[in-house]
Amino acid sequence: MHHYVNDKHIAMISPVAWRTPPRAYGAWETVVSNLTEGLVAKGWDVTLFATADSITNAKLSAIVSRGYEEDKSVDPRIVSCLHISEVFEHANSFDLIHNHFDYLPLTYSRLVSTPMLTTIHGFSSHQILPVYNKYKNNYYVSISDSDRVEGLNYLATVYNGIKLSDFTYTDIPGDTLLAYGRIHPDKGFHLAIDAAKKSGLPLVIAGYIQDKHYFEEKIASKVDGENIKYVGTVSVEGRDKLLKQAYAVLHMNTIPERFGLVMAESMAAGVPVVAMDLGSCREVISDGRTGFLVNGVDEAVKAIKKIPEISRQACRKRVEEKFTLETMVKNYEKVYNKIFKLEEKKIQGGVRA
Amino acid sequence: MHHYVNDKHIAMISPVAWRTPPRAYGAWETVVSNLTEGLVAKGWDVTLFATADSITNAKLSAIVSRGYEEDKSVDPRIVSCLHISEVFEHANSFDLIHNHFDYLPLTYSRLVSTPMLTTIHGFSSHQILPVYNKYKNNYYVSISDSDRVEGLNYLATVYNGIKLSDFTYTDIPGDTLLAYGRIHPDKGFHLAIDAAKKSGLPLVIAGYIQDKHYFEEKIASKVDGENIKYVGTVSVEGRDKLLKQAYAVLHMNTIPERFGLVMAESMAAGVPVVAMDLGSCREVISDGRTGFLVNGVDEAVKAIKKIPEISRQACRKRVEEKFTLETMVKNYEKVYNKIFKLEEKKIQGGVRA
Repeated sequence: MHHYVNDKHIAMISPVAWRTPPRAYGAWETVVSNLTEGLVAKGWDVTLFATADSITNAKLSAIVSRGYEEDKSVDPRIVSCLHISEVFEHANSFDLIHNHFDYLPLTYSRLVSTPMLTTIHGFSSHQILPVYNKYKNNYYVSISDSDRVEGLNYLATVYNGIKLSDFTYTDIPGDTLLAYGRIHPDKGFHLAIDAAKKSGLPLVIAGYIQDKHYFEEKIASKVDGENIKYVGTVSVEGRDKLLKQAYAVLHMNTIPERFGLVMAESMAAGVPVVAMDLGSCREVISDGRTGFLVNGVDEAVKAIKKIPEISRQACRKRVEEKFTLETMVKNYEKVYNKIFKLEEKKIQGGVRA
Repeated sequence: MHHYVNDKHIAMISPVAWRTPPRAYGAWETVVSNLTEGLVAKGWDVTLFATADSITNAKLSAIVSRGYEEDKSVDPRIVSCLHISEVFEHANSFDLIHNHFDYLPLTYSRLVSTPMLTTIHGFSSHQILPVYNKYKNNYYVSISDSDRVEGLNYLATVYNGIKLSDFTYTDIPGDTLLAYGRIHPDKGFHLAIDAAKKSGLPLVIAGYIQDKHYFEEKIASKVDGENIKYVGTVSVEGRDKLLKQAYAVLHMNTIPERFGLVMAESMAAGVPVVAMDLGSCREVISDGRTGFLVNGVDEAVKAIKKIPEISRQACRKRVEEKFTLETMVKNYEKVYNKIFKLEEKKIQGGVRA
């Protein structure tokens, strides 16, 4: 028999694009895994709705055998609605549904009495806003203060947390610039290349190629294997090694960042970050203390020169205080308890339909 | 105040690809419109869930302003789930939900107590079968006996009905062959061209180009404007005129036909049909009496020679008996009443969840 920390049952909806946790790329699934395992470790009763090959200490409920990004015979539209309906058909077994799946679960949410919390990991397009707008009185969490839209019932911002143990802090800076993450124009790897060239420092690029055309047009042609290297996707250990060799991380995003795990990871290893001042970047790094906010390549080149002013310990400390898995779990616990209280009031007040 | 024929409230879910009724192409929306207007004319209380520009004597409930096939700024995935959730959020106002939207509504169906009937207008791919399989105990109608899969709870086959008044019956055959419908390899227009050429008879092709590549590769190159003509999409009046000039209609489908409105329409005008013996064709035409079933081009050529054996009056009569709008409405009324009785039994038996 399991002894739980409380009598609440949580249904956690992960996306089914990738396994939870993902084998390599899969940002949303990573957060869901971290949160789920963190809650279970603290004694919460969590049922994870994810692909059948997912790995978890929670109860696993799966309709979809493999992620649709990993098995192209799977039709995303079809497995998505089967995955979601399975959660809602068991809504009565749960005190809270925590949705990390974007907009689709919202359209089922009014058909059950179990409250739902949606973490908005990003607005994939403007076209999805009518769905959020219709269901604006649901409960929402944003992943940064900057990644919010008007009118939604936000209960909190909860920053994504990282496993500190995955990152080895070192006092001694490396000698290469590093840019990593999914290879996509939004992430501005072409700007990182320009900044590195102008700085006269070597650049290592790592990450999953999400946009092949972009990679081939703007990146591959500039990779010379010496000053500009592309090393493919990296494992947790591989990433730690790259960070160890890094002088600074360049995060030259071209659109507002929603959160920016890369920046938190970098600082965890003690590596300062040069980031575009777009979206959440100014929430994640502390400008002038753990890195520099810039508005383009030329400013990035100047910032790279000032990296020695940054205390690598300050970088690590910022992560320990704000961006650990433990902090993320604690903040979600606060949100859950807030919802339980609000729901109790509704029942007492007879508001519940 | 409206006086209804009974106290039942019907929610009719149309697709939102096109307006209901469609301006030109839109087979499912056509059937929904015909059924809805037929029921309303008989005094049923029907609420039609369709695009906002739809035209109906029923109550219209719309979330989507225009069909996603008519307005490419509309994301089908997003408007579909908003459209469907709107129905289910009002399920308590209805005694029956009649779904013509394919599989998505099934995944909401267990979250409400209102029974749902799904008319399966076609299995768009094998990948959707797991959805039907999960919800196999729902109520289903097939549109032909041949278009069924194992294990679903079918209550009946209800053939699509046509408006007899849209078709002018004439005793005198025309002198061209006619092939019409959506231009797609499934509909075998290339085989119709081969059969016409071998018969030495002129062929007129009409219809919406669904598969541009197919049209350009296999059809356009053979159109000479004389022996093989393509006349584009046609209005109701235009279709009537084409049928008046037709000696026979060629329906050379390459995959099993689900129902085959074209065959019913053709017979309504008194025009015999030469059809491939695949799927429902043998249910719609009476082989040797209202047309001929064939297994390829050569058999089609032989059949074309035998067209004078067919009584044009027998063609019209078959439609009057089996494929009119009135018959379709009457058959759906039977299915509805069957469901109301089954549901009453469930409530009496305490089976209802």
